[in-house]
Amino acid sequence: MYVTHLECPKCKSRFDYKKLVQLCEKCSSPLLVKYDIKKVKSAFFRAKLSARPYNLWRYKEFLPIENEKNIVSLGEVITPLLKLKNLGKTLGFKHLYLKDEGLNPGGSFKSRGAAVGVSKAKELGVKSFAMPTNGNAGAAWAIYAAKAGIEANIVMPKDAPLITRNECAVSGAKLYLVDGLISDAGKITAKAVQRYGIMDASTLKEPYRIEGKKTMGFEIAEQFGWKIPDVILYPTGGGVGLIGIYKALLELREIGIIDILPRLVAVQAQNCAPIVKAYENGQKESVFWENAKTVAFGITVPKALGDFLVLEAIYKTNGTAVSVSDEDILKYQLLLAGSEGLFICPEGAATAAAAHLLLQSRWIKPNEKVVLLNTGSGLKYPDTVNANSPILSVNDEIVI
Amino acid sequence: MYVTHLECPKCKSRFDYKKLVQLCEKCSSPLLVKYDIKKVKSAFFRAKLSARPYNLWRYKEFLPIENEKNIVSLGEVITPLLKLKNLGKTLGFKHLYLKDEGLNPGGSFKSRGAAVGVSKAKELGVKSFAMPTNGNAGAAWAIYAAKAGIEANIVMPKDAPLITRNECAVSGAKLYLVDGLISDAGKITAKAVQRYGIMDASTLKEPYRIEGKKTMGFEIAEQFGWKIPDVILYPTGGGVGLIGIYKALLELREIGIIDILPRLVAVQAQNCAPIVKAYENGQKESVFWENAKTVAFGITVPKALGDFLVLEAIYKTNGTAVSVSDEDILKYQLLLAGSEGLFICPEGAATAAAAHLLLQSRWIKPNEKVVLLNTGSGLKYPDTVNANSPILSVNDEIVI
Repeated sequence: MYVTHLECPKCKSRFDYKKLVQLCEKCSSPLLVKYDIKKVKSAFFRAKLSARPYNLWRYKEFLPIENEKNIVSLGEVITPLLKLKNLGKTLGFKHLYLKDEGLNPGGSFKSRGAAVGVSKAKELGVKSFAMPTNGNAGAAWAIYAAKAGIEANIVMPKDAPLITRNECAVSGAKLYLVDGLISDAGKITAKAVQRYGIMDASTLKEPYRIEGKKTMGFEIAEQFGWKIPDVILYPTGGGVGLIGIYKALLELREIGIIDILPRLVAVQAQNCAPIVKAYENGQKESVFWENAKTVAFGITVPKALGDFLVLEAIYKTNGTAVSVSDEDILKYQLLLAGSEGLFICPEGAATAAAAHLLLQSRWIKPNEKVVLLNTGSGLKYPDTVNANSPILSVNDEIVI
Repeated sequence: MYVTHLECPKCKSRFDYKKLVQLCEKCSSPLLVKYDIKKVKSAFFRAKLSARPYNLWRYKEFLPIENEKNIVSLGEVITPLLKLKNLGKTLGFKHLYLKDEGLNPGGSFKSRGAAVGVSKAKELGVKSFAMPTNGNAGAAWAIYAAKAGIEANIVMPKDAPLITRNECAVSGAKLYLVDGLISDAGKITAKAVQRYGIMDASTLKEPYRIEGKKTMGFEIAEQFGWKIPDVILYPTGGGVGLIGIYKALLELREIGIIDILPRLVAVQAQNCAPIVKAYENGQKESVFWENAKTVAFGITVPKALGDFLVLEAIYKTNGTAVSVSDEDILKYQLLLAGSEGLFICPEGAATAAAAHLLLQSRWIKPNEKVVLLNTGSGLKYPDTVNANSPILSVNDEIVI
């Protein structure tokens, strides 16, 4: 393992990676994991990647686990990068791709953060944690915690997708629903963490979830033969995936395996678009979004702790931030399933709607390589689809 | 491609693989795809498997697609083979594994049959098909058909899992619900096929679905380093997966890459156990099971068209057939999630219950290598779990 220390991106304070550290003790910023890049570079170029397991653990030089016996795995896979020929043709893209995170254990990209986060928690001797969630992250941490034998206390809005509740319950987590938003769940979590002295696994309040999420960036780069696409669109709630992809690409550039970065696009819903608003105003941080509500439940985050990191990733890559309507989200969800056979989550569908907007405004050119990041499977959102089908009796016939 | 012909396993009649053939025209048996084993052997041993895509298409010498441009892919992965250390310890197994088919596109093993079946249908110029289903197969064929641009007519019991209905609807398939069982859906499909002259994609009524399913056998063999485990337990409805795994293992034995076969176990639910009953009576075929009903909806198949092939696979491998109660299915589903973090479908959980029974009866020895085949993700069965969680107001605290 090549971790050297944990570092505050705001005040540059350094912290010991051998201890459980949550936020920067000076300015309460999220911390980032720093590696000895020279050693990573040497090891990564010596490694024969093709001989390694076909999952996120193949990028082990860039991961924070000291002893491989602490790895908690539920069978992660390299998720597919699919060329969307049919949809691309319909919308006017020559090279439109989708990275399908729905094929992760638990059906969402949250399992990457949980895989690395829970493994590291196990390595640090954690016995119990609490976290707020919009559903998928809590479910992912609950299933990994079950395998690790760590107690999980999950607090989620009562309106979160039912299936994510079931995932927590079936895997033995302690589940609490709150009549409010993820920000309210966060307050309840904070009180429990303080009272019981357990680990706080809230988004970005521990530094390792991002290390798991960043493997999306490594995979995209490797799947394109280390030739980076022009644009990556990411549905942004807490934004850890975008921060992670950006961190991964910076690390790959530091070791010289890539040179230019893609333009990163944060996609939000019109009724919860704090990052978009901040970007449009040229600000470095976002403002709490009142009365947030969208069908893309996973990105209903009124104010993200890592908003400044998301905005930095956008500004530094000449990216942008764009919001889309719930109506368009559902429309593009249908379009993707009907033309490509991909039943994706509404959050993922938001990126397709946004890509089309950006193509129409010529921010994206038709011949550019564009990647939609689908964060989860549509299977977790049965309520977004209406199946009005005739009910036949056993002696009926169908008319085609 | 090394297909030589289609063959009837009952009367040995041969049929031309270049035409769309459904059942044996003489005895109405399902047909099997036959390969030029000598050529396959030579090509397979020359091939550098490790340099191939990490999905089922890597076994292309054993697959029936002539032109790779006809392949319809939704990003299939090699599904994980996980060692169940925690559960194994609890139950008394030293080497208990689970092959997790929940990570396929669409969340179930049915996508294997659909991937190869729809690809071959496309290659044969099929424009429309109809099929009965208990949910997952119809959903899988619907999503692959959407990508292929083929019309899908899906008939399923109205009690099939809601999410599989949504998968059909969202991908633009024509969906019909029937107030009855899959056998009733089959009758409605048969009438439509006859009336409109479209392809019949019913289980085993076309020979290519099994070619997709058999890749589970190749993967298990390769994942064990071509050293075959002692026992494979499979949740058996139509039984295509078991027939496919058996076919794959016979083919691998024919080219000399393996020598002995595992004992194959068909697992059914106590309230729908026609194969188990036939096995216990030493029969070659099963009898229609009246009033079939189980929480493991996918294996509610009162009489499988390929029952004789399932029973042959069991007899020839010194396997067995065993049924389990719905109560045990739900109990082992909880046990797997709680101890291994694997939220699997009730059908998959049935194999864990059966394995434990067979260990207790000493049919399985504690030190044998045992594989549970989990056919799908628990995400598709939200109703099998009860999440009774307290609902807090925003100012409440949690007590750990």
